[in-house]
Amino acid sequence: MTARGTCQTLERISVPTLVVDVRRAESNLERMLARANGWGVRFRPHFKTHQSADIAGLFSGRGISACTVSSVRMAAYFAGCGWDDITLAVPLNLRQLAELRTLVEQEVSPPRQRGASRLRLGVLVDSVDAVVPLAAGELPGVAVWIKVDCGYARSGVRWDGGAELAKITTGVDAAGSVTLAGILTHEGRSYAAESADEVRRIHEESLARMAVARAAVAGVRPAEAVLEVSVGDTPGASLAETMTGVDEIRPGNFIFYDLMQLDIGSCTESDLAVAVACPVIGRYPERGEIVVYGGAVHLSAASQLDARQPGATTGQTYGCLVESGEQGLGRLRLDAPVVRISQEHGVIRAPADVMERATVGDVLLVTPVHSCLTCAVHDHYLALDGRRLDKM
Amino acid sequence: MTARGTCQTLERISVPTLVVDVRRAESNLERMLARANGWGVRFRPHFKTHQSADIAGLFSGRGISACTVSSVRMAAYFAGCGWDDITLAVPLNLRQLAELRTLVEQEVSPPRQRGASRLRLGVLVDSVDAVVPLAAGELPGVAVWIKVDCGYARSGVRWDGGAELAKITTGVDAAGSVTLAGILTHEGRSYAAESADEVRRIHEESLARMAVARAAVAGVRPAEAVLEVSVGDTPGASLAETMTGVDEIRPGNFIFYDLMQLDIGSCTESDLAVAVACPVIGRYPERGEIVVYGGAVHLSAASQLDARQPGATTGQTYGCLVESGEQGLGRLRLDAPVVRISQEHGVIRAPADVMERATVGDVLLVTPVHSCLTCAVHDHYLALDGRRLDKM
Repeated sequence: MTARGTCQTLERISVPTLVVDVRRAESNLERMLARANGWGVRFRPHFKTHQSADIAGLFSGRGISACTVSSVRMAAYFAGCGWDDITLAVPLNLRQLAELRTLVEQEVSPPRQRGASRLRLGVLVDSVDAVVPLAAGELPGVAVWIKVDCGYARSGVRWDGGAELAKITTGVDAAGSVTLAGILTHEGRSYAAESADEVRRIHEESLARMAVARAAVAGVRPAEAVLEVSVGDTPGASLAETMTGVDEIRPGNFIFYDLMQLDIGSCTESDLAVAVACPVIGRYPERGEIVVYGGAVHLSAASQLDARQPGATTGQTYGCLVESGEQGLGRLRLDAPVVRISQEHGVIRAPADVMERATVGDVLLVTPVHSCLTCAVHDHYLALDGRRLDKM
Repeated sequence: MTARGTCQTLERISVPTLVVDVRRAESNLERMLARANGWGVRFRPHFKTHQSADIAGLFSGRGISACTVSSVRMAAYFAGCGWDDITLAVPLNLRQLAELRTLVEQEVSPPRQRGASRLRLGVLVDSVDAVVPLAAGELPGVAVWIKVDCGYARSGVRWDGGAELAKITTGVDAAGSVTLAGILTHEGRSYAAESADEVRRIHEESLARMAVARAAVAGVRPAEAVLEVSVGDTPGASLAETMTGVDEIRPGNFIFYDLMQLDIGSCTESDLAVAVACPVIGRYPERGEIVVYGGAVHLSAASQLDARQPGATTGQTYGCLVESGEQGLGRLRLDAPVVRISQEHGVIRAPADVMERATVGDVLLVTPVHSCLTCAVHDHYLALDGRRLDKM
């Protein structure tokens, strides 16, 4: 198939469609891979952002063989594509043990390799309750990570909870059929940071806290036991200067980035790699607004404070326009935000030039606030050269 | 199959699952149907909320034969189930004319009726641009509604835009192959109302504005021409005292209601008919929080101000716990809100009794903020008696 230009591709769209600028995604990937290599850490990217075998192919094509997922179904999907080293980075759901057992017992056939191997599955625990089925041999062979909370207060044992960490460690080590791989955190506080410097400060604090947690775990084990440290957030991985004491990183969002990451300072405008192509269904010049077919079920309901608009310090934005370039996405239009959404409609505050050019029946591109949630509601990607990319 | 009790049904759940209390939905439906009959208006419920052939069966079983949808795909789904009178209540998307033509040319076979009939499809226009393909005969036989904006400022010609209304009316009447059905509005301002009285005030203002718009349209047509008025919002339909000048109502959300409607005053706690059943994956008594497997991809990212929590006037909530009753949903726990969500996790602020009873591996029920968006991300319903209900 001859590669199409962006305009030809968009011309085919009839409903809100998730589009990806593959060259931008590849450039994001290469930059993050170089950072991981520079730090000398394993790169285990989170695939919950894209959930796509074809996007995953960009990673395996560059020699990356480990990944992170956020559901059992996603683990099964990527195992089916030949990924044989997967960490399921949500605390173990005791109601899915049977599904997980099926998964770890299956053979995985990585592409470009001879033969099949057993899936190396990593699971997360943050309580003694979750260790019980492991001790009972319900998930033989899995790698166990103790989830540590470095201050985000979502999941995990607190970094300074030495007694609890020791108890879980002892429980896992006593469970003969599994291996303790190490400790793992997701530093979600960085997503609320207001500057790159704040991200770096949080990151360094997090590394120091992981060292405290690691010492508590190591203290109840033989000195020679392997004990890795895994950290995960995109702002930290994009902006950190050091990865002291870290063995692997698990960023996910970096492959596409989004308006939230742009706001934090994790990326630049030309790194934003996905958008939703939306048909124009209404023009309202008298109030300077355009309505697109593209609402909460296409963009997700995620919003962020729209601090860029003069006088709009309390308003929320749900995305903003991006122009189309010859071979991909073009200039971001922060002056054309999606100011309101409902189930199927998006209302764009349109500057004069946008209003003038757009007619009912045109297609506009909207960059999302949180690309993970936007990608999650679509069932495929359309690359801007016209290829359809598979999605879970 | 023997009907199961709620507990037996929830025991089967392994992943976040959309559950419906069918008896509550039926009671909501009967109350709204009685209101429509009391006003003497046609009841054309919006099916975007449930998107389910089985839930639609509750309507057809009560003699309701007209419905509203928000996408061409949804129109095709319900036409496939035998619904032969459907209004597509989003401004006409000029990029889906071919799909719409296929739809209007197909035969629909309503259940419990002999033979098949052509689909009666209603479409919305709010500009002369959208009338062009109708005038060209691209959608023969469709019923055309002029969308009117009574102040919500999403789609529609402003109620006081007499010249534009007249121009569109003349255009539609001149297009030989279609019929002008009337004028239609969605009074979205009512969703931001802070009391039942405010909803009623907005509703009455909206009816007065529709009368102004109707006069502008009627002024350029023969006196005997049919010209209906259709209004749509759930708060208005739930709370209005009058429907003066209205021919049909199109509420949708009322079938399940949600926390947003409860806040407005459109419903009571015992009307809330859907919830997401979520496995508990973490307990954090030291901070009084429980983490469930159930995040933005299961609840939607929709939030509302959580004004009920002392000292939490600026916090957002993404849902709240509801207890399970013997044969359905039980008591709402406004004291146990979902205070943070990420892609797969929901963090519940748990009062002492909830914390005490919940263990890792249990299932908790979360009532959504906006049920339409929550239902939209699931692919089926589980009725609390154990039946699986189909969804688009």
